[in-house]
Amino acid sequence: MLTEINLNNIKKAWPKLACLSNEKRNQIIIEIADLIKNNINYILEANQKDINIGKQNKLTNTLLDRLSLNESRLNSMVESLYKIAKLPDPLNIENKTWTHKSGMLIQKIRVPIGLLLIVYEARPNVTTDTIGLVIKTGNAAILKGSRQTENTNIALTKYIKIVLEKYNLLECFGFFNTLDEKQSIELISNKNIDLIIPRGGEKLKEFVKKYAVASVLGAGGGLCHIYISDKADLQKAQQIIFNAKTQRPSVCNSVETVLIHKNLLDKNTIQTLFQPLLDHKVIIKADQELCNLNTNFELATELDWETEYLDLILAIKSVNSLEEATEHINKYSTGHSEAIITENETEAKIFCQIIDSACIYVNASTRFTDGEEFGFGAEIGISTQKLHARGPIGLTELTTYKYLILGQGQIRN
Amino acid sequence: MLTEINLNNIKKAWPKLACLSNEKRNQIIIEIADLIKNNINYILEANQKDINIGKQNKLTNTLLDRLSLNESRLNSMVESLYKIAKLPDPLNIENKTWTHKSGMLIQKIRVPIGLLLIVYEARPNVTTDTIGLVIKTGNAAILKGSRQTENTNIALTKYIKIVLEKYNLLECFGFFNTLDEKQSIELISNKNIDLIIPRGGEKLKEFVKKYAVASVLGAGGGLCHIYISDKADLQKAQQIIFNAKTQRPSVCNSVETVLIHKNLLDKNTIQTLFQPLLDHKVIIKADQELCNLNTNFELATELDWETEYLDLILAIKSVNSLEEATEHINKYSTGHSEAIITENETEAKIFCQIIDSACIYVNASTRFTDGEEFGFGAEIGISTQKLHARGPIGLTELTTYKYLILGQGQIRN
Repeated sequence: MLTEINLNNIKKAWPKLACLSNEKRNQIIIEIADLIKNNINYILEANQKDINIGKQNKLTNTLLDRLSLNESRLNSMVESLYKIAKLPDPLNIENKTWTHKSGMLIQKIRVPIGLLLIVYEARPNVTTDTIGLVIKTGNAAILKGSRQTENTNIALTKYIKIVLEKYNLLECFGFFNTLDEKQSIELISNKNIDLIIPRGGEKLKEFVKKYAVASVLGAGGGLCHIYISDKADLQKAQQIIFNAKTQRPSVCNSVETVLIHKNLLDKNTIQTLFQPLLDHKVIIKADQELCNLNTNFELATELDWETEYLDLILAIKSVNSLEEATEHINKYSTGHSEAIITENETEAKIFCQIIDSACIYVNASTRFTDGEEFGFGAEIGISTQKLHARGPIGLTELTTYKYLILGQGQIRN
Repeated sequence: MLTEINLNNIKKAWPKLACLSNEKRNQIIIEIADLIKNNINYILEANQKDINIGKQNKLTNTLLDRLSLNESRLNSMVESLYKIAKLPDPLNIENKTWTHKSGMLIQKIRVPIGLLLIVYEARPNVTTDTIGLVIKTGNAAILKGSRQTENTNIALTKYIKIVLEKYNLLECFGFFNTLDEKQSIELISNKNIDLIIPRGGEKLKEFVKKYAVASVLGAGGGLCHIYISDKADLQKAQQIIFNAKTQRPSVCNSVETVLIHKNLLDKNTIQTLFQPLLDHKVIIKADQELCNLNTNFELATELDWETEYLDLILAIKSVNSLEEATEHINKYSTGHSEAIITENETEAKIFCQIIDSACIYVNASTRFTDGEEFGFGAEIGISTQKLHARGPIGLTELTTYKYLILGQGQIRN
């Protein structure tokens, strides 16, 4: 299958897409959305095949739910495409323009990155979201979906390909679902690729990082912390940790470890802060001091400070100072999102300065780390890396820049 | 030697440096400059030792010149430090601030990257330039110099360390000169490092890329192209290619391949364009058609289109169209700097759009790709990568950003 497509040719064809006007790129996205909207039944039939095969293969209900489409889910996928088309143009913006002493004009402008590889799992909406984002940003792309949604993805890409063909852009894209391990490695390690974005679980991310030659973006986890200072408003603290742990425990911006200043270590305060979580069936793993204050806590081990549970489990630990809290966080954090609960401004400022993570919250839930919430309109994941992109990966993060230098014959002395 | 230093501790100490005010960071840089200025003789003595050892070891004159200091060179190193101290603060700038619908304030701010490793060769000015740049940007750093300048580097770092110690920042830095291969690999692959910048030849860069775990910046070469359109002003063309090839052939922004539109293939035009280069003892390797027009050209092979000579050698090739020129460039270029010589605006615009390099020139010499020329004040190399930094790596490129989200108890619904 892989031999049918030549990534070298995709890279060579890419300038056709990169040079399109914003209007044209939006028009293509809208036509794809229209065509999918007009063929909902065909796509739902294909999806039903994947569901039936999934049931035969005894996939878990969670996984079956993830790959299942219905009219409402498909409509919201279509709406996302219309929304992407309406976002401002991320390309050809002059970040900066200045004149060299010789009279040359130097312009720094936003341009597409090149050839992106997106490797993803069961959710079919990643297919449409990704195609919208890469067309909007003028990037060529390979979409590598999963075998479990093969029929759905083939149905979706049928319409995507019709529009791409109409605009003579089919050569700028590749679509795969059923590669074996060897072919996947061949794809991931291809030298024509400029950037790889894995969208899925830890296993997928590890696999991609292991074989990638190009940079990999958004492959980090989310071991998020909340520190409750002795200067915290305890009602805010209780509401924020409850929200950050329980509102959607399976996602990367949910909290995994709560640190508590030792001055708060009395039975009543600990009861106020954590009883709502216990009532919500959250398992709480605590250090010895905290366990002494509540018999419903389980004793934590070193491993708990390193674990991203993504579940209704919370690790809690007492600390002697703000300094001990920030040291613990910078040691164990994956650099995603951390929060401090305090009414003291100086303390908040120190926390914001010292914590080395993408998003740092003062008196708010870590659950807000999300492109949509940040107002980016669309995102393709969260970066916990410090280079190129950090935090939500939106349209701008899918671009790079280049310098244009416009002279009249200037030479260097 | 390496076991004496614990990179984990450097990383842990880094926030002390990251949180300093701009005034304090500048003060430290100025004090280092002052101390070096007041001890020029001591440093020159140490440098003389390196030169003597180098002569005993039969180093080439080029290499001896590179590692040699004199009063004027040392003064200009000191001046560079004063200049860095005067540059605007690259940190804590709010790129963007906006309010979430819940009332939270979201700030995107510039922050240091973390722990940088700079691996360099014989030039002692890299020691002082680098220390200035990393202090200015609040980054902890490991400076790995070369055995050939060991005595000079030890003399320079003696004064650097005195100032760092005074400000209790010595823990944020590491200085090495004499690591063996095993120790170098141990250092380069250390997981505490956020970014590695090699400064030196291709061998050094390859070695660093091979063993790096962190991202490597500025490790690309400069196979730069100039395309002479049939709509070019030939006088400009002649002056620009002469400048780009001969003004400093050993550096990465010098031109290596010139492409010529076939309409210019007559004896007189080729004579006008290339005779000055031949007179300057430049070896010209040309395709068959061009060789037919001038017997002083040597016949080029495929290998010539792939070679970064860094010498008085130039490859030249005829092309049938702008499209053929851009395809050749995007195929063989290292993504550094390319130029088009044309009086036609449409052609220039297409060239600028299609060429996928850091710096694209219209009617100017590629030799201008340089942080100083771009007005960045200081640079630590040129990036030919497309992620994080592209083109000259100045102060901004040695920083990243993070988001601060300031709430009053907000939770996600």
